[in-house]
Amino acid sequence: MDIEKLLVDKDFNELKKQLENKNIADIAMLFEGIEDKDKIILFKLLNKDIAAEVFSYLNPDMQETIITAIKDSDIQNIMKELYLDDATDFIQEMPANVVKRVLKNVDNKTREQINKLLSYPDNSAGSIMTTEFIDLKSNLTVSEAFEKIRRKANDSETVYTIYITDEYRKISGVVSIRDLLIAKNDAKLKDIMETNVITANTLTDKEDIANMFSKYDFYTLPILDNEQRLVGIVTADDVMEVIQNEATEDMEKMAAITPSDESYLKTSVFKHAKKRVFWLLLLTLSASITGAIISHFEDAFVLVPVLVSFIPMLMDTGGNCGSQASTLIIRGLALGEIKTADYLKIMFKEFRVSLVCGVILSIVNFFVVWLRSGDPLVGLVVALTLLITICVAKFIGGMLPILAKKIKLDPAIMAAPIISTLVDCITIVCYFLIATAILGL
Amino acid sequence: MDIEKLLVDKDFNELKKQLENKNIADIAMLFEGIEDKDKIILFKLLNKDIAAEVFSYLNPDMQETIITAIKDSDIQNIMKELYLDDATDFIQEMPANVVKRVLKNVDNKTREQINKLLSYPDNSAGSIMTTEFIDLKSNLTVSEAFEKIRRKANDSETVYTIYITDEYRKISGVVSIRDLLIAKNDAKLKDIMETNVITANTLTDKEDIANMFSKYDFYTLPILDNEQRLVGIVTADDVMEVIQNEATEDMEKMAAITPSDESYLKTSVFKHAKKRVFWLLLLTLSASITGAIISHFEDAFVLVPVLVSFIPMLMDTGGNCGSQASTLIIRGLALGEIKTADYLKIMFKEFRVSLVCGVILSIVNFFVVWLRSGDPLVGLVVALTLLITICVAKFIGGMLPILAKKIKLDPAIMAAPIISTLVDCITIVCYFLIATAILGL
Repeated sequence: MDIEKLLVDKDFNELKKQLENKNIADIAMLFEGIEDKDKIILFKLLNKDIAAEVFSYLNPDMQETIITAIKDSDIQNIMKELYLDDATDFIQEMPANVVKRVLKNVDNKTREQINKLLSYPDNSAGSIMTTEFIDLKSNLTVSEAFEKIRRKANDSETVYTIYITDEYRKISGVVSIRDLLIAKNDAKLKDIMETNVITANTLTDKEDIANMFSKYDFYTLPILDNEQRLVGIVTADDVMEVIQNEATEDMEKMAAITPSDESYLKTSVFKHAKKRVFWLLLLTLSASITGAIISHFEDAFVLVPVLVSFIPMLMDTGGNCGSQASTLIIRGLALGEIKTADYLKIMFKEFRVSLVCGVILSIVNFFVVWLRSGDPLVGLVVALTLLITICVAKFIGGMLPILAKKIKLDPAIMAAPIISTLVDCITIVCYFLIATAILGL
Repeated sequence: MDIEKLLVDKDFNELKKQLENKNIADIAMLFEGIEDKDKIILFKLLNKDIAAEVFSYLNPDMQETIITAIKDSDIQNIMKELYLDDATDFIQEMPANVVKRVLKNVDNKTREQINKLLSYPDNSAGSIMTTEFIDLKSNLTVSEAFEKIRRKANDSETVYTIYITDEYRKISGVVSIRDLLIAKNDAKLKDIMETNVITANTLTDKEDIANMFSKYDFYTLPILDNEQRLVGIVTADDVMEVIQNEATEDMEKMAAITPSDESYLKTSVFKHAKKRVFWLLLLTLSASITGAIISHFEDAFVLVPVLVSFIPMLMDTGGNCGSQASTLIIRGLALGEIKTADYLKIMFKEFRVSLVCGVILSIVNFFVVWLRSGDPLVGLVVALTLLITICVAKFIGGMLPILAKKIKLDPAIMAAPIISTLVDCITIVCYFLIATAILGL
């Protein structure tokens, strides 16, 4: 179907009909690549009962375009239908004047809840949870529970998991819809509920929440406040987004890019440059130190110029070894497979891996360098430097992310670029010292 | 609780009691770090109704230890309780003699289904789907549907989504438990079902399945065979694992590591070395080409030795620029945000980003180099080379992953290490050509 053509032809009846057969997420995708005024027309054509859901799939720019173009009554309708976590995400991205107008159009209770959700730190469970869940009392029977669930089904993000709370809103158990279906109608919830409930706190790190989902195969996870009261739930769909975004963010940081939420093609040239130039600048300046060290050994390579030609290989290998180690450690830390307390184990393991890799690479390169330079001693210099470089690179690559985590920095920033620059310096110093000693310069 | 102590003391009653209050995934974690004979004792102490589920959380080594130590009747019990996708994952990892014994202990129908699932390629939807789903006919009423769901609830991986199929097992609609709860008891499924069902094929790539889950916020996705018949479903918990594993795999490939499934600490030193040494060796040898190019320009740097000291900075910047571009493109391709058809847009965007970054870095480094070398002409040589290096690195970093995808290779292997090595060569040639021209060497 050619949406743009129908919009140009103003064939709104056909357009409406076409929209009816499409999935919400696909409708939202139609808004990409059409003009702002067409976005508004398209949105107004949507059925009232799906408009809010489509709205939640749009990106913030489009949301702003639409929200500023529609009537207060339409805003009310959208805000009533939106799940609270989606509403909060949306409001977070809007400029102040839009926020004001939106919050004017929600009822007091919703406004309070949104303000509460907005107050959680960006990387916390609180920021991705929703307060729309089903909680029941333990003395209900299964059929009474079904009655209540039916009434609450429309306003809850999920009906699959039901939490059992006491009068102080403390959680005492959990039942799934499956448990309820299998149970007898007159059974009491307290007799069929699972009492061993895994929970997290509103301030738990999003990444830890994601790892809990992976470990326990959850669909929902209950979130407690500091007084141990149930205040929200996190659902699997939000966690999938967290997992994808955290991985993207880590990869960007590891490649010396300041992370952002926007996709590649939608980011402007200047934003791209801004994301990249700071780290590049910092790294060119720190690489100057390596340069200064080389200048210091000028006499050596003017006497034996062939030494210079092995610098790239030594530097690249150091960088690659460092990034292999740091990538494995950064990822292990992110997945919770490695703890900072494992640092001794890691050090010892990286040391042994370095020896195995180092010996193989050194032997091969000894012969390659001998062949190219015609001098076995030069081969020996390069081979020895290579062995030391690999050990140093793997040590630094393994330890820096752990150190970063220990001092509460993101381990991902301790990746290839920073490690290369550091390892370069050490490599060059070793190289020329060994050369001076062996070649008697 | 100290499991090991209770095992040593043979206090099995207390052990059993402690196990009762623990979550399945936590029980599975107890098996880590205890001896094989204790693993078997611990497993035998488990309640029959959770033994299979705990089993599905164990790693393949532990599964093998246990399965070879228990009776045929216990194997039968486990295989009956395991979800088919978990059973298939387990069998896939076992040696032939164990597989034979296990398959002897399942009924014919299950054996057939397992063999079917085993035949799907490793990276396909078929390999992660389960065949245990609920499908109903469209002429049932809501209360009849509930009756059937109740009976099937125990044998289905999920009861949250029910598929409506016709007599040819073709899918005609979908209802969620929520829809059923809200609907009137005498409503027919065909009147409340959603007919616009998004599906995937058994051979669809796992990564594409993961992206569909992210896009549509699914909990389950129906999988069709080539005749469009419903043959299985993929559930959110399996997709989360796919998302984590694919991200880990891409990161490892990008850091020149051969990916594996095992966690860092559990991988032996030799396996670690094996995962890393091949790429390192390949890259040292290809870095020799850069070395040969440097040798070619020996006369230049013997005349102006300070030129050598800027090689590390130029090489590192080239490598960093390339890895910034390639990381963004590789991740964009993996998330489906970028298509290979976008290559012209990417080329143009990277060119403009290069100019912005290049001009800033060149100006700063012009002054830094002038200051260090005392010669503005050397500053000019380095600044010009830097500008060209950045443009080349961003072009190669942006294009190689697209090219890889186009020729059906994994874009992630075209990352930092390969690009650095390539960019190094071009940088060095430009550097010395520009130096020769400007400094009149």
